[in-house]
Amino acid sequence: MSLRILIAPSGFKESLAADEVADCIATGIQRVITDAEIRKAPLVDGGEGFAKALVAATGGTLHPVQVTGPVGQPVEAHYGLLGDTQVKTAVLEMAAAAGLRLVPRDARDPLKTTTYGVGELIKAALDAGVERILVGCGDSGTNDGGAGMAQALGIRLLDAAGKELGQGGSELIKLHAIDMSQRHPRLEQVQIDVACNWHNLLCGPKGVARVFGPQKGASPETVEQLAAALDHYAEVIERELGIDVREMPGGGASGGLGTGLHVFLGATLHPRYDIVMQYLELDSLLRESDLVITAEGSIDFQTPRGKIPVEVAQRAKRYDLPVIAIAGTIGKDARVNFDYGIDSFSTILKEPCTLGEAIANSSDLLTYAAERVMRLIQVGQKLVVRQSNLAS
Amino acid sequence: MSLRILIAPSGFKESLAADEVADCIATGIQRVITDAEIRKAPLVDGGEGFAKALVAATGGTLHPVQVTGPVGQPVEAHYGLLGDTQVKTAVLEMAAAAGLRLVPRDARDPLKTTTYGVGELIKAALDAGVERILVGCGDSGTNDGGAGMAQALGIRLLDAAGKELGQGGSELIKLHAIDMSQRHPRLEQVQIDVACNWHNLLCGPKGVARVFGPQKGASPETVEQLAAALDHYAEVIERELGIDVREMPGGGASGGLGTGLHVFLGATLHPRYDIVMQYLELDSLLRESDLVITAEGSIDFQTPRGKIPVEVAQRAKRYDLPVIAIAGTIGKDARVNFDYGIDSFSTILKEPCTLGEAIANSSDLLTYAAERVMRLIQVGQKLVVRQSNLAS
Repeated sequence: MSLRILIAPSGFKESLAADEVADCIATGIQRVITDAEIRKAPLVDGGEGFAKALVAATGGTLHPVQVTGPVGQPVEAHYGLLGDTQVKTAVLEMAAAAGLRLVPRDARDPLKTTTYGVGELIKAALDAGVERILVGCGDSGTNDGGAGMAQALGIRLLDAAGKELGQGGSELIKLHAIDMSQRHPRLEQVQIDVACNWHNLLCGPKGVARVFGPQKGASPETVEQLAAALDHYAEVIERELGIDVREMPGGGASGGLGTGLHVFLGATLHPRYDIVMQYLELDSLLRESDLVITAEGSIDFQTPRGKIPVEVAQRAKRYDLPVIAIAGTIGKDARVNFDYGIDSFSTILKEPCTLGEAIANSSDLLTYAAERVMRLIQVGQKLVVRQSNLAS
Repeated sequence: MSLRILIAPSGFKESLAADEVADCIATGIQRVITDAEIRKAPLVDGGEGFAKALVAATGGTLHPVQVTGPVGQPVEAHYGLLGDTQVKTAVLEMAAAAGLRLVPRDARDPLKTTTYGVGELIKAALDAGVERILVGCGDSGTNDGGAGMAQALGIRLLDAAGKELGQGGSELIKLHAIDMSQRHPRLEQVQIDVACNWHNLLCGPKGVARVFGPQKGASPETVEQLAAALDHYAEVIERELGIDVREMPGGGASGGLGTGLHVFLGATLHPRYDIVMQYLELDSLLRESDLVITAEGSIDFQTPRGKIPVEVAQRAKRYDLPVIAIAGTIGKDARVNFDYGIDSFSTILKEPCTLGEAIANSSDLLTYAAERVMRLIQVGQKLVVRQSNLAS
């Protein structure tokens, strides 16, 4: 019976995308066990690479779309169509249309940046006739509560004078009325699921403006201005649509895009890995595996707090599967992970080096590390056979 | 049936002695498999730490002896008595009495340095009534062909005028006659075995003066002077004692001490690991083991050329045992070791760092690495059990 191995890694920050990580590990394994049945489920959060990863995992297709970028510039974005699904499903990440990476450094002002392009991307998917859309949040450069996205799909956000709001977080303070009458008609027929960080909230002391505003370029004053605008936004949404979004889990995702997707498009928000793993059919993959190998750039005491290796391990343990993590760096107190379903972990390193050298060689190092790990596992297998031969 | 693990490592240069390496690995294993039957065979070449390691491995005792150092200074050396042997056996390393470490940097002149103290150390062991002596060669600071050692044991080395030679390699050129009549009487009754590098020769283009002279402080002219002196020494030995030592395997060990031990004391020279492994009873340890873990500071393409991990692996394979190597550094083309009986290897590293940092933390790093390796092996063991449960 050949060994069935599920490779379910994260990407390695600044070096390898999740699917590249999975490929390296697979190559390493095959050097040792040529007949291993390998399946790959490269995992991503909702941010950059989300669509590409799910498309690759399902054998789907990627479709380029030119949209309006976060500072109004034309941007070449893309959505994907998942392969191997009964329901025609599009997948897209907000970062492809409104990511921080698309905001020039000297234009990083979340008072102005917009998710309008995200709406255009959703529109392209709707126009392609899909029945489900999966939206990934993360790596955003915006803080407009998803207002721009909504406007691109026909939702009219009006000020007290009945005039349409302009783009950017600063405009939200003027919101007075919401007109859904011209909303894109296909939104009625389409299910939208959002993969987002469940801990991101729209308002309050841990609201998205305060937590993420600074890294998007907001000064302390701007942070307060944005927080006030989002408070007002939530107030109008509650009054007009009857939904209290202030502390809705995931509502603060991607500068409040989670809120906009939920209230204007009827999207369901999900903890990001739940939805990713569901779409990757991780449970059925786990059910058909003997061993799970996960990976992340670094494994440490924070890994059990929602990072991919432990998210994978926790699910694998429902099927009593052994789980190994391969990491670039084994960081502080990584041993805690042994209590969270990771049976062992190994570094990709082979000799003293700098982080930069490790990143530059990560592909070769990872492949080699997977080979060595597999060889150690093989020693364990042989030991059992040897001992049972001795016993009999 | 509890797992029987033999730990047979080398020391880690500049950081851990072989017995310390073995202890770290044992601790790491015990964190994972509390009932493992662990045996340790810390391996050494004949150099520094040789006596201590064999004493520790056999539960013997160490005995301090003050001797004459390589530049004539008093030196606190030691010999050991092996525990658990039928024949009372002493063990000593030449480096304790005449090692390069004992030659002050500004006095590194192999024309002058002497092995006299090695003879005194052997004398102390003889006087303690042992029946066997095991002498380790390596890490020497001398190039006197073992002449000083011989003189300390009563062998008279005479010039043409019948006068006793002085100390140091430069004196050998004057050797004219050898008088064994006053040799220490107990040498007749004692078996002496020497652990030495089998490739070290006394004379010729690969003779010890040319190969090792420079690192002992010899200038190019001094090298030629020493080589000529050793050629003459070999000539007189052949004429007087009838033994051709010019290219005798091991005769060049420790600046020609191998030659002196053989011709004056009747010692038998052995490839260093053969004798070490024999005294450690490695074969019977292997026969009673399920798994072997070896280790060395670095593992690379040179490891199969006589380094401890492959020496151990080759012997382990006679008993079809799986072998794992743990290394500080996995160096160039280390993969070749897979063809020499090492089933897998692992580094002690856990994150990008300098060599200095790795050395400073080697004890903790090694223990942790052994733990992770053992956990990977355990995963392999569980896989077999899991698959056989599924099959039945």
